[in-house]
Amino acid sequence: MSKNRLEAFSDGVLAIIITIMVLELDVPEEPTLAALAPLIPVFLSYVLSFIFLGIYWNNHHHLLQAADSVDGRVLWANLHLLFWLSLVPFTTTWMGQNNFAALPVALYGVDLLLAAVAYFILVRALLSLHGQNSTLAQALDRDIKGKISLCIYVAAIPLAFLSPLLAGMLYVLVAVIWLVPDRRIENRLRR
Amino acid sequence: MSKNRLEAFSDGVLAIIITIMVLELDVPEEPTLAALAPLIPVFLSYVLSFIFLGIYWNNHHHLLQAADSVDGRVLWANLHLLFWLSLVPFTTTWMGQNNFAALPVALYGVDLLLAAVAYFILVRALLSLHGQNSTLAQALDRDIKGKISLCIYVAAIPLAFLSPLLAGMLYVLVAVIWLVPDRRIENRLRR
Amino acid sequence: MSKNRLEAFSDGVLAIIITIMVLELDVPEEPTLAALAPLIPVFLSYVLSFIFLGIYWNNHHHLLQAADSVDGRVLWANLHLLFWLSLVPFTTTWMGQNNFAALPVALYGVDLLLAAVAYFILVRALLSLHGQNSTLAQALDRDIKGKISLCIYVAAIPLAFLSPLLAGMLYVLVAVIWLVPDRRIENRLRR
Amino acid sequence: MSKNRLEAFSDGVLAIIITIMVLELDVPEEPTLAALAPLIPVFLSYVLSFIFLGIYWNNHHHLLQAADSVDGRVLWANLHLLFWLSLVPFTTTWMGQNNFAALPVALYGVDLLLAAVAYFILVRALLSLHGQNSTLAQALDRDIKGKISLCIYVAAIPLAFLSPLLAGMLYVLVAVIWLVPDRRIENRLRR
Repeated sequence: MSKNRLEAFSDGVLAIIITIMVLELDVPEEPTLAALAPLIPVFLSYVLSFIFLGIYWNNHHHLLQAADSVDGRVLWANLHLLFWLSLVPFTTTWMGQNNFAALPVALYGVDLLLAAVAYFILVRALLSLHGQNSTLAQALDRDIKGKISLCIYVAAIPLAFLSPLLAGMLYVLVAVIWLVPDRRIENRLRR
Repeated sequence: MSKNRLEAFSDGVLAIIITIMVLELDVPEEPTLAALAPLIPVFLSYVLSFIFLGIYWNNHHHLLQAADSVDGRVLWANLHLLFWLSLVPFTTTWMGQNNFAALPVALYGVDLLLAAVAYFILVRALLSLHGQNSTLAQALDRDIKGKISLCIYVAAIPLAFLSPLLAGMLYVLVAVIWLVPDRRIENRLRR
Repeated sequence: MSKNRLEAFSDGVLAIIITIMVLELDVPEEPTLAALAPLIPVFLSYVLSFIFLGIYWNNHHHLLQAADSVDGRVLWANLHLLFWLSLVPFTTTWMGQNNFAALPVALYGVDLLLAAVAYFILVRALLSLHGQNSTLAQALDRDIKGKISLCIYVAAIPLAFLSPLLAGMLYVLVAVIWLVPDRRIENRLRR
Repeated sequence: MSKNRLEAFSDGVLAIIITIMVLELDVPEEPTLAALAPLIPVFLSYVLSFIFLGIYWNNHHHLLQAADSVDGRVLWANLHLLFWLSLVPFTTTWMGQNNFAALPVALYGVDLLLAAVAYFILVRALLSLHGQNSTLAQALDRDIKGKISLCIYVAAIPLAFLSPLLAGMLYVLVAVIWLVPDRRIENRLRR
């Protein structure tokens, strides 16, 4: 089964998710700096989510590039990932509009955690289709970044109730870890 | 006539439909669990519709994969299907915001029924273009799932006025029936 | 210059335009038929616009299928067409929410007229690029439907101030004329 | 690494940005010309932003057409560009709804300036990947339009606080400069 439409559909959904978040930036009525000020936390959470969705798009791009084909299981694993990502605009806005209060910050982390788990499942589905000796398997052999991210999310979610700021900084840390695209697959493909 | 743009356009419309539903999840003002609670029925109906649209995307993917070409009739049959699917965000939100009241649950079923009929018409249009001896015709020879789905919808719609819960469970049953992608076409293509 | 991205971008914009119109169908608060009733004119105008956008997508598909390449002039002629089509959700909702009052019906026609003129300009830009002896030129030699549509719009717009119903029926007439896709190009390509 | 998905994703995001701006044109309640009048500044700012986004799409199209491949740095430079463009609907609406007041006009220019800088960075990232002797490098050798645009933005932003009208006219001037697509790349590819 061809992977082209899976890529096209995922690109479409990710492009929409990343763009509609900006609709949540309510345009203020007054043309003053004071009217813009309350938007700052929403804007900051928008920037963070934009980066996370960019990371997912980048990694998805690399992952599918290394894949030869997809099957029904992969299609559903991919839709499962898109489902959790589709909730990012909601959790982002809730977090921003409540000025990074504890519960919204925790829920933001839960959504990121579930998306990370879904990405992990998608990788497994692709590996089980391609076999242990495929280019894909060799390129992905140890998914260190993925495992570290899961650990950080699991730590950050309860931490949000003690210090939302620290939890938020852990989310930023995950983003920084991933900002460099997955060179492993790029290197493997080059050989 | 090439099927590429029909696939691309359908992917675009389905990606938008599946994603804009999340805009209907009104972000609550308070950062509390109590403020999230009223969103639960809207969220559940969002999950159900996400799965239905995922099923349509999957089946559409498989169907067009088996098709060689399209004509004007297929283009319009496809737009007709997209029309009914484009109403899913409306019926989903109405059902969720009214906590699965009778009329919205029935209307949700009517929309699913009309989408199923439109899919059936699209399959006929493709079959009439490809002929009875095509790969497509062999792959689709008995559309049992499609026929069962139509029967369940026809039963569920009036049932919604007696028990919206039972009707809702029938919709879930249809989703479960379809969650496994159509192996027939995959198998046929593999031979 | 390759026509692929022009097709992909146009598909994206048309898919979004056709889908966001449904966001204008305000979900009623009550789960009753009485609450749905006021939506009927908005729904009817949505159906009409869905068909018009489907016609544009179909014709655009056929037109670009017959084209070999595009240049900067074609890109801008295409963006010009997309601009007028992007206003369709606005004019559709204004017409529907005001129950087909004179001015909104006239403005709806003005937007359709300007889109039709933009399509005409796009065809000219493609013809001037491909030359008088191209497949495209042969396929399009007399654009009777296009000319009739322009005449009907020019008649319908002032008529809207006398009888919005008659003007609306003229718009429906244009849709009916175009509902059959442009066989000329299909036939020409088949030879 | 293939450039196809980068093009597809960028097309998706640009198509959505260009289209959702029209959602900010609030549909007036009354079917009268008087009710349309307050929308004129929002409409004018929509037209200007539509043209700017069309210019970016055109130039992006030309730029990627001349590129052979992309790497991780290019992907992020591209996402950075899309980030600033994604804020255009916000700045456009704020500027239009406040009837071209000083601060919104300045912020609109800041967003355009940052998008122009991001485009410049994207060009550098592509050049560093393709080398100084590539078709791309030859096609882009002196980016005069880009440099003039940056200068005009830098002048227009403070000017907005003295005369928003003059600043707005400078933005229009940038649009006029770019409206002709970049013939250099077209010419280079033709040879």
